[in-house]
Amino acid sequence: MQHYLSIKDIDNIQEAIQSCIEIKQNPYANDKLGAHKTLGVIFLNPSLRTKISTIKAAQNIGLNVLPIDVNNGWALEFSEGVVMNTDKPEHIKEAAQVIASYCDIVAIRSFAKLNDKEQDYQEQIFSAFKKHTDCPIVNLESALRHPLQSLADILTIEEYKKPKKLKKPKVVLSWAPHVNPLPHAVANSFAEGMQLMDYEFVVTHPEGYELDSEFIGDAQVIYDQDEAFKDADFIYVKNWSSTKEYGKVINTDAKWMITQENLKNTPNAKVLHCLPVRRNLVIADDVLDSECSIVIEQAENRLYAAQYVLSELVKTLKLQMSKAPLLNEKVYADEVE
Amino acid sequence: MQHYLSIKDIDNIQEAIQSCIEIKQNPYANDKLGAHKTLGVIFLNPSLRTKISTIKAAQNIGLNVLPIDVNNGWALEFSEGVVMNTDKPEHIKEAAQVIASYCDIVAIRSFAKLNDKEQDYQEQIFSAFKKHTDCPIVNLESALRHPLQSLADILTIEEYKKPKKLKKPKVVLSWAPHVNPLPHAVANSFAEGMQLMDYEFVVTHPEGYELDSEFIGDAQVIYDQDEAFKDADFIYVKNWSSTKEYGKVINTDAKWMITQENLKNTPNAKVLHCLPVRRNLVIADDVLDSECSIVIEQAENRLYAAQYVLSELVKTLKLQMSKAPLLNEKVYADEVE
Amino acid sequence: MQHYLSIKDIDNIQEAIQSCIEIKQNPYANDKLGAHKTLGVIFLNPSLRTKISTIKAAQNIGLNVLPIDVNNGWALEFSEGVVMNTDKPEHIKEAAQVIASYCDIVAIRSFAKLNDKEQDYQEQIFSAFKKHTDCPIVNLESALRHPLQSLADILTIEEYKKPKKLKKPKVVLSWAPHVNPLPHAVANSFAEGMQLMDYEFVVTHPEGYELDSEFIGDAQVIYDQDEAFKDADFIYVKNWSSTKEYGKVINTDAKWMITQENLKNTPNAKVLHCLPVRRNLVIADDVLDSECSIVIEQAENRLYAAQYVLSELVKTLKLQMSKAPLLNEKVYADEVE
Repeated sequence: MQHYLSIKDIDNIQEAIQSCIEIKQNPYANDKLGAHKTLGVIFLNPSLRTKISTIKAAQNIGLNVLPIDVNNGWALEFSEGVVMNTDKPEHIKEAAQVIASYCDIVAIRSFAKLNDKEQDYQEQIFSAFKKHTDCPIVNLESALRHPLQSLADILTIEEYKKPKKLKKPKVVLSWAPHVNPLPHAVANSFAEGMQLMDYEFVVTHPEGYELDSEFIGDAQVIYDQDEAFKDADFIYVKNWSSTKEYGKVINTDAKWMITQENLKNTPNAKVLHCLPVRRNLVIADDVLDSECSIVIEQAENRLYAAQYVLSELVKTLKLQMSKAPLLNEKVYADEVE
Repeated sequence: MQHYLSIKDIDNIQEAIQSCIEIKQNPYANDKLGAHKTLGVIFLNPSLRTKISTIKAAQNIGLNVLPIDVNNGWALEFSEGVVMNTDKPEHIKEAAQVIASYCDIVAIRSFAKLNDKEQDYQEQIFSAFKKHTDCPIVNLESALRHPLQSLADILTIEEYKKPKKLKKPKVVLSWAPHVNPLPHAVANSFAEGMQLMDYEFVVTHPEGYELDSEFIGDAQVIYDQDEAFKDADFIYVKNWSSTKEYGKVINTDAKWMITQENLKNTPNAKVLHCLPVRRNLVIADDVLDSECSIVIEQAENRLYAAQYVLSELVKTLKLQMSKAPLLNEKVYADEVE
Repeated sequence: MQHYLSIKDIDNIQEAIQSCIEIKQNPYANDKLGAHKTLGVIFLNPSLRTKISTIKAAQNIGLNVLPIDVNNGWALEFSEGVVMNTDKPEHIKEAAQVIASYCDIVAIRSFAKLNDKEQDYQEQIFSAFKKHTDCPIVNLESALRHPLQSLADILTIEEYKKPKKLKKPKVVLSWAPHVNPLPHAVANSFAEGMQLMDYEFVVTHPEGYELDSEFIGDAQVIYDQDEAFKDADFIYVKNWSSTKEYGKVINTDAKWMITQENLKNTPNAKVLHCLPVRRNLVIADDVLDSECSIVIEQAENRLYAAQYVLSELVKTLKLQMSKAPLLNEKVYADEVE
C-alpha cells in the first residue's frame, strides 16, 4: 500500500478484515511498530471520530503524531503561476514539501465545498501532495471518498453478518433527508467498498441523487425505499446533496427518514450510519435507541480500521535516516581532490 | 474511585494527601502506570492551569492523551426527543458513547452559564457521560465544582500549616470583588473540601452571596471580613457571582479586595487563590508580591493533585482488550451448528 | 547554554554545526535524552514550520510537549501596578511562574506588532519569563530575532558551500518586495548569525530599510542589488518593513523580486528563504522551481537546528525532582521540637 486514498488501495480486503479483527482483539500487540516515525495530520474541516480514532490508532502503534495547523494561520495558494499578492501567503508546493520533510506519513481531511463539481473533483490538496512529495498520504475524507470510514463499515458488517451458509448479506445504502447540503464522500466510498464484497448491494434514494457509476458500479438502484429494504440485513443510512443539481438540497421528504415503520419489511436489519447523525431528521429515536442500531460499534471500528491502515503504511516505509544528503561533500568532492 | 466529580469521591483524604506528597517528591515513580490507556480531555471553556497540569500529569504516568474538540467543530444537542434540524449536528448520546469507546478515562470542563440556575445544576454533559457510558469521568470544573483545584488547595494548606501541636489551622474563604459574574464552582468545591478536614473553617462575603449549605456544611458565615480574618492562618480568596440574584454582580465594594491593610488582623496568614487573579481588583500587588502569597505553589500542586486522581482511576481500570465482542460468531453460532 | 534567545547564545558555532549534522544523520541517537522533561510551547502567532519542527525535534529526543494556549482563552496583562478591570484576566507574572512550574523548558513565539518600535524592542513576554522564572527559554521568533531559523540557515549554507580551499563563500541578504509590512526578526537574526561565520557578507535593500548595526555589524550595505549580487554564492531573500518609517511599506518596486534575470551576475548562486514565500512577488517561479532554490532543504534543517538547541538545553537541566520543598516540615520544625 503506497497511499490510502480509496478503499481500493487495499490489496486484499479479506486479509485486511482479518487484520482489523486481530488488532481489535489485541490493539497493543505492535506498540513499537511506528517508533521513530511521524504521522502529520491536517484537518481543513471539523472532526470528532476521525481525529481521535486516527490519533489513538497512531498512539497504539507508537507512531508520533504531529498536528499541522495549515489554514489555522494562513490559507494556501493552489493556482500555478499567480502573483501571490492576496491573503494566501504560502503556496501548496512549498507547504507540501516542507510538511513531507518532517513527516513519514501525512493524513489529510479536506471536504468538498459543493460549489463547483469540477473543482471538488480535483481534490487539490491530495493531488498536490502526490505530485510534490513522495510521502504516503492517508485520506481522512476528501471531496470524493472517506475510505477509513468504509473499511470500518465493512468490518462492522462482517462482524454482524449471518454466517455465509445461511444467507448472502443484503446491504442497502439508503439516502435520508437533511437540512443542509452534505458531501457525497461517505456514500461514494461505502458503495465503492461494497464492490469488493460478496454481498447483495442495493442503493435507494429520490431522483436527482444518483451517485456516480464509478462508485456504485453495477449496484441496483431502486427509487422505492420500501421495496429496496425488502429482506435487507443491513441498512446503511446517509444523507448526501443532489448530484443532478450539484450540491443542492432538492428533496426534504420526511418519509425517507429511517423509522421502525420504514424498517417493517426487514425487522431484523441492522442500521448503520457514519455519525454524526441528526436524530428524528435522518434516523428516528425509535431506531437509534433500539437493538437494531449498531452505529456506536461501527464508530468504535474506526479505530481498528485506522490502526490497520497506518500499520500497513508504516511497514512499507524504509528506515529513513536523513532525507537530504550532505550535498557539499559530494558535489564538490572532485574539485577538492 | 469510580469517577472524580467531587472531592468527596476521595475515599480517604489523609491517604490522598500523603500520596500527593509522594508524587511530588518523585513524579516519575510510576511512569508506566498508564501505559496502553487513554485519557480523553474535553474543554468547553478556556483553561491554562487545568489543561496543562492535567496533560502533564497524564504524561508523567505514561497515559496517552486525546484532546477532543467537541464544540470546536459543532455544538451538541442535549434535549431528548427533539427533531435535530438546528445548528447542532450531534446528540450527546452518540458523542458520549463514541468518545467512551476510544478512551479509558474522560476528563471534562464545562462551566456554569449563569443564566439559569436549574439548568446549570443539571450539569448536562457530566450526567450524559454517566448515563450513557461506563467510562470514569474526571471533573475539570463543572457548573458546581472544581475538585482537582480543591485537592490542590488542601495539599497546599497541609504543606504550609503549622504542626497540629501548635494550633488547629483557621481557614477563611473570602469573597472578593470582580468586574464580571463568575461561577461558584471553585468556592463551592473548596468549602466542600474543608468539611473533610480538621480545620476551623469560616466563610466571609457580602449579603446576597450565600453559598449552598450542601457545600459549606455547618461552616460559620461572617459578613464582616475584618472579624472573619481574626487569627486566620489561611485566607482563600475568590470572587463568585451572587447566589440570591443568580449569576449577577450585585456588589463591587473595593473594601473586599485583599490588601495588606485587610490582613492586618492576621499578619502571618498565607493567601491562596486558584488563579487567574486580577491584580488590584481581587488581590492587591502588595499581597501578591509578598511572602504571604502562596498562589504559585498552589498552582504547582494542581499537577500532583491531577496525577493522584488519574493514577487512582487507572488503577481501577481493568485491562481492557476490545470493548465490543466479535458478535456474529456468538450470535449466530447456534444457527450454523 | 542557559537560554536560546539569539544565535549568539551558541558557545561554539562550529561545534553546533557539527552536532546538527550528526543529528541529521541519526536523529534518534538520543531518543531518551529528554525523558521526564517537559517542553512548553507558546505560540502567540501562527506557525507552520516552527511549530512542527520544534515539536518533532522534542519528540525525537523523548521530551514531552505541552502546547500552552495562552491568548487563546484570555489575554495577558503586562503592565505593572494597574487595576486589572479590563479584558485581560491574568498577569504575565502569575502566568509565567505557573507555566514554569509545570515545564522544564519554555519555547515562545511573539512577533513584533510593528506599531511602536520601543514597545516591540521590549520583547515583553520573553523579558517577563526571564525576570519571573528560572526556566530556560527558547525563542521561536520574537520581535527582534528568529534564531532557530538562523541556525538552520547557517547549517544549510555550510552544507552547500564550496570547500574552503576553493573560495570563501559570499552571502548576500537581499530585501524583496511584499504587500504587507513584515517584521525584521528573520533578517536581523540572519545578519547576526553571519557575524559568527567566516563568510563575505553583504546586505542589499532600498533606502529606508537599513537594519540596526547591532545585527549587521560591519557588513557592507550596497543599495544596488545587481552590484551586490556579483559573484555571490548564496542569496538570502527576505522582505522586511521599513526601519526609517518603522513598520511601514515604503517601497514596492518589483525590480527587487528575485528572478533568473536578477541572478544573471551570479548564475550558480543558491537561493534561500525562510518560507512562507509569496511566489512571483518575493521570488519568481523561475527561481523557486529551479535547481538554485534550496528553500525546502533549508526548511528541513529547521528540525535539526531545533533538535540541537533542545538537546543542549536538556543537557544543562539538572535532574529536577519537586521544585517546591515540603515547606511546613522545615519552617515549623524548630517550633515543634
